Amino acid sequence: MRVADIIAQKRDGGKLAADQIRFLVDGYVQGRIPDYQISSFLMAVYFRSMDDEETVVLTRAIIDSGIIMDFSRLEGPIIDKHSTGGVGDKTSLVIAPLVASCGVFVPMISGRGLGHTGGTLDKLESIPGFNANLSLKEFKEIVRRVKSALIGQTGDLAPADKKLYALRDVTATVESVPLIVASIISKKVAEGIHGLVLDVKAGSGAFMKTWEHARVLAQALVRTARLLGKKVTALITSMEEPLGHAVGNAVEVAEAVDVLKGAGPEDLKELSFTLAAEMLLLAGKARNFDDARHVLEQRIADGGALRKFCEIIAAQGGDPRAIDDGPLWARASHRYEIKSPRKGFIQSIKAEPIGKAAMLLGAGRETVDSKIDHTAAVWVCKKSGEEIGGNEVYCALEFNDDRRLQEAIALVEGAVVIGEAPPEPTKLILERIVEC
Amino acid sequence: MRVADIIAQKRDGGKLAADQIRFLVDGYVQGRIPDYQISSFLMAVYFRSMDDEETVVLTRAIIDSGIIMDFSRLEGPIIDKHSTGGVGDKTSLVIAPLVASCGVFVPMISGRGLGHTGGTLDKLESIPGFNANLSLKEFKEIVRRVKSALIGQTGDLAPADKKLYALRDVTATVESVPLIVASIISKKVAEGIHGLVLDVKAGSGAFMKTWEHARVLAQALVRTARLLGKKVTALITSMEEPLGHAVGNAVEVAEAVDVLKGAGPEDLKELSFTLAAEMLLLAGKARNFDDARHVLEQRIADGGALRKFCEIIAAQGGDPRAIDDGPLWARASHRYEIKSPRKGFIQSIKAEPIGKAAMLLGAGRETVDSKIDHTAAVWVCKKSGEEIGGNEVYCALEFNDDRRLQEAIALVEGAVVIGEAPPEPTKLILERIVEC
Repeated sequence: MRVADIIAQKRDGGKLAADQIRFLVDGYVQGRIPDYQISSFLMAVYFRSMDDEETVVLTRAIIDSGIIMDFSRLEGPIIDKHSTGGVGDKTSLVIAPLVASCGVFVPMISGRGLGHTGGTLDKLESIPGFNANLSLKEFKEIVRRVKSALIGQTGDLAPADKKLYALRDVTATVESVPLIVASIISKKVAEGIHGLVLDVKAGSGAFMKTWEHARVLAQALVRTARLLGKKVTALITSMEEPLGHAVGNAVEVAEAVDVLKGAGPEDLKELSFTLAAEMLLLAGKARNFDDARHVLEQRIADGGALRKFCEIIAAQGGDPRAIDDGPLWARASHRYEIKSPRKGFIQSIKAEPIGKAAMLLGAGRETVDSKIDHTAAVWVCKKSGEEIGGNEVYCALEFNDDRRLQEAIALVEGAVVIGEAPPEPTKLILERIVEC
Repeated sequence: MRVADIIAQKRDGGKLAADQIRFLVDGYVQGRIPDYQISSFLMAVYFRSMDDEETVVLTRAIIDSGIIMDFSRLEGPIIDKHSTGGVGDKTSLVIAPLVASCGVFVPMISGRGLGHTGGTLDKLESIPGFNANLSLKEFKEIVRRVKSALIGQTGDLAPADKKLYALRDVTATVESVPLIVASIISKKVAEGIHGLVLDVKAGSGAFMKTWEHARVLAQALVRTARLLGKKVTALITSMEEPLGHAVGNAVEVAEAVDVLKGAGPEDLKELSFTLAAEMLLLAGKARNFDDARHVLEQRIADGGALRKFCEIIAAQGGDPRAIDDGPLWARASHRYEIKSPRKGFIQSIKAEPIGKAAMLLGAGRETVDSKIDHTAAVWVCKKSGEEIGGNEVYCALEFNDDRRLQEAIALVEGAVVIGEAPPEPTKLILERIVEC
């Protein structure tokens, strides 16, 4: 088998056989096939795509490059949630304890933030003592005991994905549906889960800018996960504006805690409860969606979800008192408020510039080496559709380092549109995909 | 400037600016940009192509990676010929001395054979003592004194092309018109020529399998060479069957000598004279095509062309007596004749399997490291359209090593079609392209 022939076959629109795809992935991971042949192959895949069979083989080859978590001794359903990434998206922090408090195992392996999107792990590290870098053995033990744990990527699971993603990132081959699908699904299958709920974001603040593109991705994700024997549901959700009011790290954990306490912003509650309900359905813990919602609301009302969050924090070395006071509720040293020049209604709030502004203030990473300031934040005080008076604050920037403040202010000012009349209402949950 | 952004721009069908293309080529040659980004870029170019402006900039950047030959002290036109490669194509060996004998400088930098196509240098090295590895200084001196010399690629001219071609070869990105154009034209412009005649082969034995594809390439070559200030004419010529009777190395030089002596096969004479006439026209050495043909026939008749070949051979360290006897006229130790099973007419002779059979016998290179057997050859005794008796020889294989003889026989037998009636006559010179 010659690598150049396999590349040419894909380049010419041909379908690759399983042994050809495995030959490439195995050879790449083992260092027999050089980067420059794989990057040219990835670009050919960008243009020619892959069908479901090829995508499944690619995903399987990436899974087999590492170990698969063995949760076979757990008695009960094991379900995870994956989001394609957005601004102000702290749903994982609500969902993991909430769903675990309903008796479902939720082993969550999350990423770190880069660019305008935040990362669940960066947020969690706002909690004093919290350790997201557990070994798989420790992770497994906590999941068994507490039902949920949240850790970072590990080199043991799907190492081929890490190598491929690093190459894609510098060769303009990230935006390919089969490559995205293989990357996401391989890592989730390697977690040893039974089922997966996917939150595929669509909109200006998301990786997929349109509903149509998000649907193509969501359908491919669902088909591939199912072909690999997993129960799966995908929701396409709007990422036009940030989720909730808080965009940053400590402030996002605090907002998630608000939801676990029964308060919090409506959109965050709505999305968290919907995703959690889908997880309960996959887990067989509810007969229907309304039933699932009811169970979840009970766990909020009786404090079970919040207690579960404290258990998780404690199990991972953190201080559970953080949910009531301390760093999560502390503020950065400076605050800059952006006020409305006239009265009217918020028409729209673009997520990407808000996320980028938060990054410039220190809440995110411009490059993988950037250091996170856990208190830096952008507050979206008014959400779209809300009425606003003249000279009323609609966004606030909190920061310790003002070096890029002016850039951040300009981004936030440019992100918000104020008009005279109330805007058309928008939908948060756009579509549910279970069969395709 | 970020490399990944430039790749993405081309991937998305955008036009690249001159400084972006130069940034890539310069960075690659200087080792700042890694292979894996360039190979992904080349695959994007494969799919999105380049317009004339981009192709010219790419060609220019490749030229500027090395030196440009300075022939400014030569008084007279400097014209070269380039062929995209075929089977049995020894026209360079006829043309260089023939055109030089008409007072035109012909500095020829040629390649070596690979796969089913032979290389001019491999053929010339059948001449005892002939040295194709001259320094550019020696090359220049011989061109000045004798008017022509034939040498191999040198690292001094267009080194970026060598690096890019090696990468394209293993990443399935060879077959891209702008990349082919930049590769060919950069090397020719670096030779310091005034004009160029291109022999773009079309057919089953050529790189471009169809006339239409060959036309696209020929037009792009002509446009790019002209935009770089060169006089240029392209001929699209048929490479369905081997040129002449001899396919090998020594036998091809001998056949070229036959033409210089006024004999030789009709198709080889026709193509050599037509290409040479185009060179005389570009050189301003003839008023029109018929005039040019007449001058060339004179140089054959008066022995000037043959004497010029002897001068070139002597100048490059070879023994000019080779044109009359010695290794060029020697035969390999074994001969296998393939005979017609019945009488009829040769319908077609596929060039590629014939070339491949010659390679298997030792006349060519399966990989760049293969060693050439200069006497190994395939003789095409009957050309298409010729009548053949039952049990008459139509091809003969000459070899010293019979390890792959059976494969070679099967290829030759499969390459020749014999039918009852004379076939439709075919054209050798398909199209002439000067303006496009």
